[in-house]
Amino acid sequence: MQLKKSWVTSANSPETHFPLNNLPYGVFSTDENEPRCGVAIGDMILDLTLLEEEGVLSVGDEPVFDLPFWNEFMELGAEAWLDLRTRLVDLLAEGGDSAISGNEALKSRVLVAQSDAQMHMPFVVTEFTDFYAGRHHATNIGTMFRGAENALPPNWLHIPIGYNGRASTVVVSGTDIRRPLGQLKPPNADLPHFGACKRLDVELEMGAIVGTGSTMGQPITVAQADEMIFGYVILNDWSARDIQAWEYQPLGPFQAKAFGTSISPWIVTRAALEPFRTSTPPREFDLLPYLREPGPMLYDIALEFALQPDGADKATVLTRTNYREMYYSAAQQLCHHASSGCEMNVGDLIGSGTISGPEKHERGSLLELSWGGKEPIVLDTGETRSFLEDGDTATLSGFAQGNGYRIGFGDCVGTILPAVEAPRDLPRT
Amino acid sequence: MQLKKSWVTSANSPETHFPLNNLPYGVFSTDENEPRCGVAIGDMILDLTLLEEEGVLSVGDEPVFDLPFWNEFMELGAEAWLDLRTRLVDLLAEGGDSAISGNEALKSRVLVAQSDAQMHMPFVVTEFTDFYAGRHHATNIGTMFRGAENALPPNWLHIPIGYNGRASTVVVSGTDIRRPLGQLKPPNADLPHFGACKRLDVELEMGAIVGTGSTMGQPITVAQADEMIFGYVILNDWSARDIQAWEYQPLGPFQAKAFGTSISPWIVTRAALEPFRTSTPPREFDLLPYLREPGPMLYDIALEFALQPDGADKATVLTRTNYREMYYSAAQQLCHHASSGCEMNVGDLIGSGTISGPEKHERGSLLELSWGGKEPIVLDTGETRSFLEDGDTATLSGFAQGNGYRIGFGDCVGTILPAVEAPRDLPRT
Repeated sequence: MQLKKSWVTSANSPETHFPLNNLPYGVFSTDENEPRCGVAIGDMILDLTLLEEEGVLSVGDEPVFDLPFWNEFMELGAEAWLDLRTRLVDLLAEGGDSAISGNEALKSRVLVAQSDAQMHMPFVVTEFTDFYAGRHHATNIGTMFRGAENALPPNWLHIPIGYNGRASTVVVSGTDIRRPLGQLKPPNADLPHFGACKRLDVELEMGAIVGTGSTMGQPITVAQADEMIFGYVILNDWSARDIQAWEYQPLGPFQAKAFGTSISPWIVTRAALEPFRTSTPPREFDLLPYLREPGPMLYDIALEFALQPDGADKATVLTRTNYREMYYSAAQQLCHHASSGCEMNVGDLIGSGTISGPEKHERGSLLELSWGGKEPIVLDTGETRSFLEDGDTATLSGFAQGNGYRIGFGDCVGTILPAVEAPRDLPRT
Repeated sequence: MQLKKSWVTSANSPETHFPLNNLPYGVFSTDENEPRCGVAIGDMILDLTLLEEEGVLSVGDEPVFDLPFWNEFMELGAEAWLDLRTRLVDLLAEGGDSAISGNEALKSRVLVAQSDAQMHMPFVVTEFTDFYAGRHHATNIGTMFRGAENALPPNWLHIPIGYNGRASTVVVSGTDIRRPLGQLKPPNADLPHFGACKRLDVELEMGAIVGTGSTMGQPITVAQADEMIFGYVILNDWSARDIQAWEYQPLGPFQAKAFGTSISPWIVTRAALEPFRTSTPPREFDLLPYLREPGPMLYDIALEFALQPDGADKATVLTRTNYREMYYSAAQQLCHHASSGCEMNVGDLIGSGTISGPEKHERGSLLELSWGGKEPIVLDTGETRSFLEDGDTATLSGFAQGNGYRIGFGDCVGTILPAVEAPRDLPRT
């Protein structure tokens, strides 16, 4: 696959994350316009809400871009997904349909500079599920807490282990994250206390967005699951390690993960990622038949985590890893998710689990990078970090590298705000 | 509090679950009408959608009963909740407003026999969270799996332990439940296999429905949490014990609970339950201040679980217990849920956790009743049960007993269908 040329010239740079090969979907607003659907092309955004209003673009019988989220469009299904992509390529390609490129008045209205736009949540998150499918991550965490001999739980090589997360606090990149309060019990304390998290962490993940639902009571195949996925985002599963340590037995993480999850602003479609498919790694145990992939369903996506303290000139890159490190693909996770008969719906978000590579600089969380706080990390500023401080900005980013082009997601950024004071309870009146 | 008399005479029986003191909210349809909002009164349902259309009833500036769920009404907030209740009491009380009672034509259109109606989900479940707040239940389960010495996890007496559940498969009473498939690893097997659950169970719970949201990043007090609760339902948290045993370490239950959760059809409001408030039990550890209740926030509600095999003439009552057995109230659970800054939304459903009393016949699950399958239960038919068989119907029911009246919820019923075959994966084309 080569770079496809667009008349939007910034889309033809080998460095842009948004060439014509990508066409990721987002929701943006400007000083003039309320939040609306758009597609990134080079350093611009094409306003699909306006194009639909103007009749230049039409998918299905009813408008779907008159709402500031992509769920309505996803509902139309795979044929509509393909039709829109085909139409957009035609409208934006060099030498394609001149409806926009040949109409200066329209062009100036429907193309907005990304630098003039604010991004919003691209879709309504129906439910959020987070997996734990990175082998290096699970091994690192397991080694820290249970020793190297018992690092992986016995089920780990057989099941994509996951838990239901909290959808209400999934936010778009750029949203500040408030340091959570919670019950904390330091190892040497007899009793817990309630206070601000002291071990606040990032988890570098990918998120898969379900675009086609399944039926309650009806499992699906891995192949079906793959086709149900509308696209992918980069995801930061912010984690309060000290809250988690005290609360998680026996029912898993709850408030330690519930205060916030950030996603990158652009949904990169499965179609755009198609050239980057790669297989899950070799396994010492064959998977059970329902989980076997009929083809490669992971993707080769280079990922990075950088940390910038408040007031620092620039961020320090702490992690470079790749989505292909995962032990289970999103398709396998989704198949497992529906295996009991659990109904999956349009807008469900599936977190991959933390993506760590085998090397120290490939670890996708501070817990692993600082080995539980025992080996603090030195930033380029000379400061050290074991966990996040107030004012720190964490940036996750990534792209798939094609032959002379890149498929990117937009950064997934969040800055830590200080904890609030706990509310005081009032006597009952 | 005494029985309030209604001109709907069936509402004046001391046995009815739906006297004028109750006025629970549901969604129903008939052969003539699509699903719509209604309130139960005696053995009838008052059609609020039609009353709003006719202008007899009006809450807020816009219609809220033109949709087949109660979320829109909940959004209006506490003042509207009180106004509607006041207006309904006036319209239905003996000697009250005669707009309906004095208009035979209207009366025959807006009052529908419950026996002619089909019930639907009364609200859209935004997110579902399930707690584990019954001390007898947690002690029983802990004793079975870890021995009596270590029955309660160290955090249990300090935190209302909960996990995020799956909202997509919360269904109304009367919906059949398909036996789930899943990964199973019997204790003596080396490797897991994929197949139908063999240890299918009920969990007798109450569900609290959030009617007022909170803000991301902002904890709430217990008193605020109590006021955010719109009402309560009876809830069956169907559980696949064998799937759970293999999957739940380290992130908690996932597919073992994701295939279905049933709720009773009528939302009983906090106002109706007000006379039945009772306190949580004495504690050996003081709760942390953020969790302390400024007043009684549990309710005295008698609950029952009955099991009827396919073809049996009648059900066998296996469990009689009470919601007052819980260690944490729904208000405490909701307060803890928001403690990290987790945003709570209108339509969130909070499961209490299994409600078991101290005695054997008070246990709220088959796992406890049959002590892990070691002591099968004998039904009135002479059949035995350790877990649910295909065709079994589980009925949960309950009411608060007032002075000459009862506040009921409607039964929470589900029948087990046989497992489907696993879908076969197809070669990728």
